[in-house]
Amino acid sequence: MPQRLRTFDADFENKFDLLLNAKRESSVEVSDAVADILHHVQQRGDDALIEFTAKFDDLQLTPEGLAFDQDEIDQAYLDTPDELIDALKHAYKRITAYHQRQLPKDELFEDEQGVTLGSKWNAVDAVGIYVPGGLASYPSSVLMNTAPARVAGVERVAMMVPTPGGKVNQTVLAAAKIAGVDEIYRVGGAQAIGALAFGTESIAPVNKIVGPGNAFVAAAKRQVYGKVGIDMIAGPSEVLVIADDSANPAWIAADLLAQAEHDTAAQSILVTTSPKLADDVMAEVERQLDLLPKKHLAGPSWADYGAVIEVNDLDEAFNISNRMAPEHLELSLDNAQQYIDKVRHAGAIFLGHHTPEAIGDYIGGTNHVLPTARSARYASGLNVHDFIKRISILGCTPSSLSALAPDAIALAEAEDLQAHGRSVSIRLNL
Amino acid sequence: MPQRLRTFDADFENKFDLLLNAKRESSVEVSDAVADILHHVQQRGDDALIEFTAKFDDLQLTPEGLAFDQDEIDQAYLDTPDELIDALKHAYKRITAYHQRQLPKDELFEDEQGVTLGSKWNAVDAVGIYVPGGLASYPSSVLMNTAPARVAGVERVAMMVPTPGGKVNQTVLAAAKIAGVDEIYRVGGAQAIGALAFGTESIAPVNKIVGPGNAFVAAAKRQVYGKVGIDMIAGPSEVLVIADDSANPAWIAADLLAQAEHDTAAQSILVTTSPKLADDVMAEVERQLDLLPKKHLAGPSWADYGAVIEVNDLDEAFNISNRMAPEHLELSLDNAQQYIDKVRHAGAIFLGHHTPEAIGDYIGGTNHVLPTARSARYASGLNVHDFIKRISILGCTPSSLSALAPDAIALAEAEDLQAHGRSVSIRLNL
Repeated sequence: MPQRLRTFDADFENKFDLLLNAKRESSVEVSDAVADILHHVQQRGDDALIEFTAKFDDLQLTPEGLAFDQDEIDQAYLDTPDELIDALKHAYKRITAYHQRQLPKDELFEDEQGVTLGSKWNAVDAVGIYVPGGLASYPSSVLMNTAPARVAGVERVAMMVPTPGGKVNQTVLAAAKIAGVDEIYRVGGAQAIGALAFGTESIAPVNKIVGPGNAFVAAAKRQVYGKVGIDMIAGPSEVLVIADDSANPAWIAADLLAQAEHDTAAQSILVTTSPKLADDVMAEVERQLDLLPKKHLAGPSWADYGAVIEVNDLDEAFNISNRMAPEHLELSLDNAQQYIDKVRHAGAIFLGHHTPEAIGDYIGGTNHVLPTARSARYASGLNVHDFIKRISILGCTPSSLSALAPDAIALAEAEDLQAHGRSVSIRLNL
Repeated sequence: MPQRLRTFDADFENKFDLLLNAKRESSVEVSDAVADILHHVQQRGDDALIEFTAKFDDLQLTPEGLAFDQDEIDQAYLDTPDELIDALKHAYKRITAYHQRQLPKDELFEDEQGVTLGSKWNAVDAVGIYVPGGLASYPSSVLMNTAPARVAGVERVAMMVPTPGGKVNQTVLAAAKIAGVDEIYRVGGAQAIGALAFGTESIAPVNKIVGPGNAFVAAAKRQVYGKVGIDMIAGPSEVLVIADDSANPAWIAADLLAQAEHDTAAQSILVTTSPKLADDVMAEVERQLDLLPKKHLAGPSWADYGAVIEVNDLDEAFNISNRMAPEHLELSLDNAQQYIDKVRHAGAIFLGHHTPEAIGDYIGGTNHVLPTARSARYASGLNVHDFIKRISILGCTPSSLSALAPDAIALAEAEDLQAHGRSVSIRLNL
């Protein structure tokens, strides 16, 4: 059974602290193994990729076979039902439209002292997208990772997707075609991250790597960080629902289970002002669980990490939510929009009774790659800014340089950097 | 002697490749030692900080003495010459003004399908700023790291600055007071990063850590990433100057040396269309080097990592610069502004003959924390975005949910996530 907490109980803070700091991921220590794999890929390129793919994915490749042929991709697209192609296209269009509004503007201006200042945003040249094999091989994630890169203007998007035993997820290929991915390789694990970071004979290196993966992929991303950019290290997914009497218990139960079906380590939390709703949702979860094909995942997730928290008022609810900094925050309240300013830390907000998180997972337009494990305290969901970077611009005239020079020289001298001061004074014949 | 390359020489690509991939940092393998230090700080808090500070900084502290008293900070401020206080204030004012323009706007809108979409930006709650001790303890860096955090609206800024043997940099404290740093601790190294990430009895944890440091600090930041956010891992500094006949060789030599005096691993490169300028700058560097107090650093930097590259035209110059993705790019050209669009990858651009990089290091207003080691290919200099994060917003009405539902359900089914589909259909009585 999930935990039932009440903010007005004496031991609430202790229990909430335990919930807040519960470690849901078993940390597998793979960093030495990963360092070894990365070293081999860097030294031996394609040969190492082929060896590791034979060993870990039970698949014999050739250098020419590392990449999918365009014919294979086209065929996968043709083999995908029309209805699904249309859904993917609709989703991609909405995601693209939302992300286009995130493009910042360059600027160049002169300030009061006659100094030219500005900023210029350019896209990253080449990006690698990792798509896990197996259970979590989601076509929707291909769209979510690729759309902001495309909107940013990234020229080359290379995708890595393992195909254990040669098993290919056709819909993932179809989604990649729709999103305009330039290259797709049937390589996974730490070796795929190594290929993207260092390049091989057949695969050109990229500048940034995004996308979720298992412990090997996460450790590899951490190790190549600096050589290339990376996105966040994704952990198990979570949802927090704030609800009051106006909410429908069956709908909320469905949302909690949608989160729980991802993984036994997923977390679903209800925070409510209504003891009756709390009871009703718990009963509904049990009822709906029985009907669920993924009961074997959702059941343990709900029992081990689920929680129902009763609060005195909505201010308490938002306080709890901000302390959790949930990846997904549903506001199952009337007039939910008025509460947006109470949210300080969350990956995404879903407003009102008719916005289940699943709409955002697929087709709402917002990105479903969001900060997990309380990292919304300092991180954002994937967006166009992850694929662009900012160049600052500074320009002085002889007179504005003269105006700024004395203070620049004073600071350079205080830091004992005489050549810094000299590079200013030499221009003024001082 | 620095390298002299010409793009029109047959072996240029080989030589340039070597220059591009030259490893300027000796990588010290400290990750096991750092993991041990972090573990002790996490387990034993203040006691561990005091032990490590005694061991590494030869300084005996008490729990009460970890933080500087307000009196000590005020006294440091009073002991700083007025001229320097004024310079720090002037710099802080200009840096703040420039960074204020970086604050993004929240938005909330309804699209054609009646879906509410938006984004909300909030500041990170608490930030830790690391300031190295010894040679690289720069008051200007205190301003540069703190200003964007303050502009972002960060409520709590905690600073860590080691004081080996009890030696305190008074100007660093004065700069911290001017920038409104809330807490200052005399702790350094990996133990300081551990204290910021995990907290101790005396030091509350933060959500994000920024600032440069030695190999221990860099490794510690890498290891706590995920628990907290971090900024980039800074490497040795570099400048690339693009110049033509219009440039003054003595000025450019001064700029190259200002870079070289930081560190023997710093890198200064001139790319020019003018063979005469190349000769004159090289002669000027030798002449000015002799006069420089930091000749022992600037000399080896210039000899080992410096380079002068002759090109046929400016397009070649910008191509080379984009391949290097330099931290600092000076355009010593007439009408430099017209070339901004040729720059794809750089940390900062300095326009024209009267903008030595040192102006940007101190007082121009732009940030001097910039991406090193070619990371400008995927990273930006420090800015307000490093201290805020984005929450996405999605809201459906009954009718817009109905419009999006079929495609969302189709995608959920394709991903075998039945509870996702159900959380949508249950709201439509499907």
